[in-house]
Amino acid sequence: MENDTRTRAVSVAPSTGPRRGLGLEEFHLGGGFWERMQRSNARNTLRHCLDWMDRLGWTANFDRVSQGATEAPRPGWPFSDSEIYKLMEALAWEYGRSGEAWANAVLESLVDRIAAAQDGDGYLNTCFGHAGQHPRYTDLESGHELYCTGHLLQAAVARARTVGHDKLVEVARRAADHVCREFGPTGRAGLCGHPQIELGLAELGRVLEEPRYTEQARVFIERRGHGTLRPIALLDASYFQDDVPIREAAVWRGHAVRALYLAAGTADVAADTGDVGLLDAVQRQWARTVERRTYLTGGMGSRHQDEGFGEDWELPPDRAYCETCAGIASVMVSWRLYLATGEVRYADLMERTLYNVVAASPDADGRAFFYANPLHQRTAAADIRPDRVNPRAEGGVRAPWFDVSCCPTNLARTLAAWQGYVASVEGDTVTLLQYAAGELRLALDGGGALVLRITTEYPHDGAVRIEVVEAPDREVHLRLRVPHWAHGATLADRGGERGVAPGWAQARGTFAPGSVLDLRLPVEPRLSWPDPRIDAVRGCVAVERGPLVLCAESIDLPESWSLEDVRLDTARPPRADGDGAVARMTSVRPPPPGPDGSGYPPYRSSATPPREAGAPARREVPLVPYYRWARRGSSAMRVFLPTAQHGSGGDD
Amino acid sequence: MENDTRTRAVSVAPSTGPRRGLGLEEFHLGGGFWERMQRSNARNTLRHCLDWMDRLGWTANFDRVSQGATEAPRPGWPFSDSEIYKLMEALAWEYGRSGEAWANAVLESLVDRIAAAQDGDGYLNTCFGHAGQHPRYTDLESGHELYCTGHLLQAAVARARTVGHDKLVEVARRAADHVCREFGPTGRAGLCGHPQIELGLAELGRVLEEPRYTEQARVFIERRGHGTLRPIALLDASYFQDDVPIREAAVWRGHAVRALYLAAGTADVAADTGDVGLLDAVQRQWARTVERRTYLTGGMGSRHQDEGFGEDWELPPDRAYCETCAGIASVMVSWRLYLATGEVRYADLMERTLYNVVAASPDADGRAFFYANPLHQRTAAADIRPDRVNPRAEGGVRAPWFDVSCCPTNLARTLAAWQGYVASVEGDTVTLLQYAAGELRLALDGGGALVLRITTEYPHDGAVRIEVVEAPDREVHLRLRVPHWAHGATLADRGGERGVAPGWAQARGTFAPGSVLDLRLPVEPRLSWPDPRIDAVRGCVAVERGPLVLCAESIDLPESWSLEDVRLDTARPPRADGDGAVARMTSVRPPPPGPDGSGYPPYRSSATPPREAGAPARREVPLVPYYRWARRGSSAMRVFLPTAQHGSGGDD
Repeated sequence: MENDTRTRAVSVAPSTGPRRGLGLEEFHLGGGFWERMQRSNARNTLRHCLDWMDRLGWTANFDRVSQGATEAPRPGWPFSDSEIYKLMEALAWEYGRSGEAWANAVLESLVDRIAAAQDGDGYLNTCFGHAGQHPRYTDLESGHELYCTGHLLQAAVARARTVGHDKLVEVARRAADHVCREFGPTGRAGLCGHPQIELGLAELGRVLEEPRYTEQARVFIERRGHGTLRPIALLDASYFQDDVPIREAAVWRGHAVRALYLAAGTADVAADTGDVGLLDAVQRQWARTVERRTYLTGGMGSRHQDEGFGEDWELPPDRAYCETCAGIASVMVSWRLYLATGEVRYADLMERTLYNVVAASPDADGRAFFYANPLHQRTAAADIRPDRVNPRAEGGVRAPWFDVSCCPTNLARTLAAWQGYVASVEGDTVTLLQYAAGELRLALDGGGALVLRITTEYPHDGAVRIEVVEAPDREVHLRLRVPHWAHGATLADRGGERGVAPGWAQARGTFAPGSVLDLRLPVEPRLSWPDPRIDAVRGCVAVERGPLVLCAESIDLPESWSLEDVRLDTARPPRADGDGAVARMTSVRPPPPGPDGSGYPPYRSSATPPREAGAPARREVPLVPYYRWARRGSSAMRVFLPTAQHGSGGDD
Repeated sequence: MENDTRTRAVSVAPSTGPRRGLGLEEFHLGGGFWERMQRSNARNTLRHCLDWMDRLGWTANFDRVSQGATEAPRPGWPFSDSEIYKLMEALAWEYGRSGEAWANAVLESLVDRIAAAQDGDGYLNTCFGHAGQHPRYTDLESGHELYCTGHLLQAAVARARTVGHDKLVEVARRAADHVCREFGPTGRAGLCGHPQIELGLAELGRVLEEPRYTEQARVFIERRGHGTLRPIALLDASYFQDDVPIREAAVWRGHAVRALYLAAGTADVAADTGDVGLLDAVQRQWARTVERRTYLTGGMGSRHQDEGFGEDWELPPDRAYCETCAGIASVMVSWRLYLATGEVRYADLMERTLYNVVAASPDADGRAFFYANPLHQRTAAADIRPDRVNPRAEGGVRAPWFDVSCCPTNLARTLAAWQGYVASVEGDTVTLLQYAAGELRLALDGGGALVLRITTEYPHDGAVRIEVVEAPDREVHLRLRVPHWAHGATLADRGGERGVAPGWAQARGTFAPGSVLDLRLPVEPRLSWPDPRIDAVRGCVAVERGPLVLCAESIDLPESWSLEDVRLDTARPPRADGDGAVARMTSVRPPPPGPDGSGYPPYRSSATPPREAGAPARREVPLVPYYRWARRGSSAMRVFLPTAQHGSGGDD
């Protein structure tokens, strides 16, 4: 293999703009929250995904094509190829980061099998275009052919950025060339029901310095929004984001993962073509969506029916879909917007989503996953059998695999490359964006190395120590993100301790080895109040602690209490407790309402709200990080808790 | 045609039990709410349905079968035959009640066409079992063959009870005999994914005095709940009520219309077989469902995804499905339970559902319909083209026809036979259940006639005058339902005026012609408070007036106001206004929240709820009956309004 075009192992590399993310080799996790997540991903999740896809016959679909055995019924959904590609992307990052030989061997074996299934003209798909199958591109709405190709290209990008040009990259190049011929300006005027090809083409174009790919991504983006795709049953054009041209859309809508992958690809194209109007459109959509269509956890997608965004302010906690993949896609979009603009709000949302959606999905050992991430579970879910393929939206229990199993492989690739999000670099300015223990080791563009050792128990503690191990003998600019919630944060360095406001804390100077910066972020529990226009959580409040959203679980309640009776006494602020992540709130359990009013259940007519008879019970109840919920067993759960004043409409 | 087995034209005729409903000939509507509804149904809806089904080719599907032309693609869903049968049932009731020749002519013509499509062994379905079609009963989950047959039997029952045995009854008899042979105890151990055959068999068994049909209905009911049906995609066995045997189920669940048709059929079988345990099960399920899974309007079905009941307390107003057909089915169940038990609660729920679900669906002229009946519409819906087939759950605008168009024909048959619900008769006891202007004319079992003239503007006014026109010269027992909300009702007769409590007001005696009973039901607007466990409307209150649920529409707000800002000032009670149905509430529009707290939209962290800066605006805003909403044009709408105290979590 030639290594001459090997680039830095970053997950996204815009071809314009002053700042870049970290290559995987530039940050080594040294214990803590994300190292634990990454370790269980490496040790368990990768093999778990491979085993399931072997067992279900999804990997063997490639062999059926290469062996001409496609007449027999094909197992898996039409888009199952994409799961193989996402796993391949994960394996590429994993091998690039850790050098783990197993990962490389599995990847190379998979590459051989998919390469053998590629048609002579570069087309590669196990569901269409061969004997006994529907012809190519005859179901652009639901067939997911270009979506699958997009994930193939992403896997190749990961390989190219970690190892260099190899067989996978060549397979991807041929597939991309095929797509350009087939769907170019003079080809089929089609587009894929599920965006993803745009991202893949843009990123492969960067790696291979091939402007035709970026141009094809641009063509797909401009082609969208004109009602080309046929509606599927009850789903109209907004489901595919084919209702309004991207430049004109005010907000994300329809299927959340589709909308977000499209936005990420659009940001890539906008960056590479210098299209300010297109970038503005994505930023505008981000702002409106975050303000009106995003959960406290960062989760997106309010409806099960179409796995989609609902309307503004439609954010039910119980029927929240908040698909894990939508959380990952949201992080992908915000990362691109941060790289393009440098605005702190994008890094803030990434943190919120990483801790409260992405980290919530896998179980501690990375072998079971949440697909949907609701904020309210009324009844403890039934236990599941560990060997079962589960319906995707089954609430309240992590499952090993799903009928549609996009989330496990999506997590795998995200966690394998997680440290790319830790910081950005812009000349001699280094900005710490996410706090994790480990070592940052940069060769600065202006010459010299910057090595920082970061010590922290974040997010369970708000102290972050940054020690300069090595620095060039010239002025360097260190910037530290102060999260939006961190009112009262301080930064101590050789100049003493000072308060730092949410946004950027800055330290500029020539740093001697051994210099220390001590950032203290206040992680006392705080009450978070929803906008009154979010009807579904009126009269409720949530508790957050640092970047973590907390929740109450029925497993922590006294035997005789039900989670539906628990209210939070806002007059007694929740206090920190336990391991640094847990809090305790004073909970009020009201007596049942009195018998006044007319008796049509469950609505009672009376001039004033029904009064509760007798005194309420009061008790301290634990609140645990949302990402951990249901890890101790099946449980009912609430993020938003009725306040004692608002539980029944009556005053307490 | 022979008329010898002609029975009273009642919509349901249990073969046991002391009380019966009214035959259509026993009550003549004389102006008012329900006569207007019935008139627009007779004049417009029946023909409207026929025209659409002719235009879409659904009626011609029968000719394709009789002409052996089934190889060509068949228009319509597999269950479209059922729409023809429901229209035929409506035409049968309409002709039976009014003698309208057009209705009879259309019905007879349809009977000829369906009879010609019946196979030699009695099987009758235009989607299965003929050349180019799937074989019979190969898709019991989704094929709806037995469901369609059930509606055919119901149409025949309406014909038999109004005209007597005719060709339609013979077609139904042959179809029922076929079902008994095919699915009897020694036949296929199958059941239909959509209940309805149970109802049809039970009722046809009553009309034809054929115990085999009742027995086959019983077999289907006992066969259900053992996981026989295969799951459809994400829908599990509870979707079809095939998860738990009917006797053991605690509550209705899954697809709402299916659950309710099944419950109605079960009540029929329980009544005819004297199965007390089975009747108890349905009553228990009714009570739990009404307490925890029913909207203020009487609407049932909280989820779009499966058109189904959600969990206990899951009653979102915005995503309420509340399908019109589920409202009709709920009335069917409650009517059967009332006939079986005589309990007033069943008649109370019927009234609630008739006024706030059934009457809400059609437009004033009966040519456009709501399919879903949500309690909150955030944005005024786009106008639709009157010639368009609409997706079924499109909110906020009545549509002339739907892709799945079960609701228009279901309304047609319900409205055509509406007066059957007005009263029940038990020996010399006559119970008025629903109040409508008109004349009740009964031949009492003990001899003699009872004729009552009822004068009222109900529901827009609470005064109901009942004048005895003719009565036998012996003691008769009149009972009047006092609705559960009517605290302070009075009844005046020759003995003077007295207060009557919710339940039954009674008058017993020998009534001279000219005797008058004056019932006065208080219909002042009242506040109705939801149980605090209904999370989705916490901090809100609704306004009702008599049997009518009221709502606020954006069309009534000042230009600069948005419905999302409107709160109800509970300190100033809503007052009656206008035509007797409208009320006015004092609304408070708060200023926007102040800038305190951290700024992560739309959630703000602070120790106390964000305060509103400045004084709120106050204004009277009309509240209109829910059944009329969107009749004046597209509008945003709310039934539950945040109270001024609870709008933002802040005190006002």
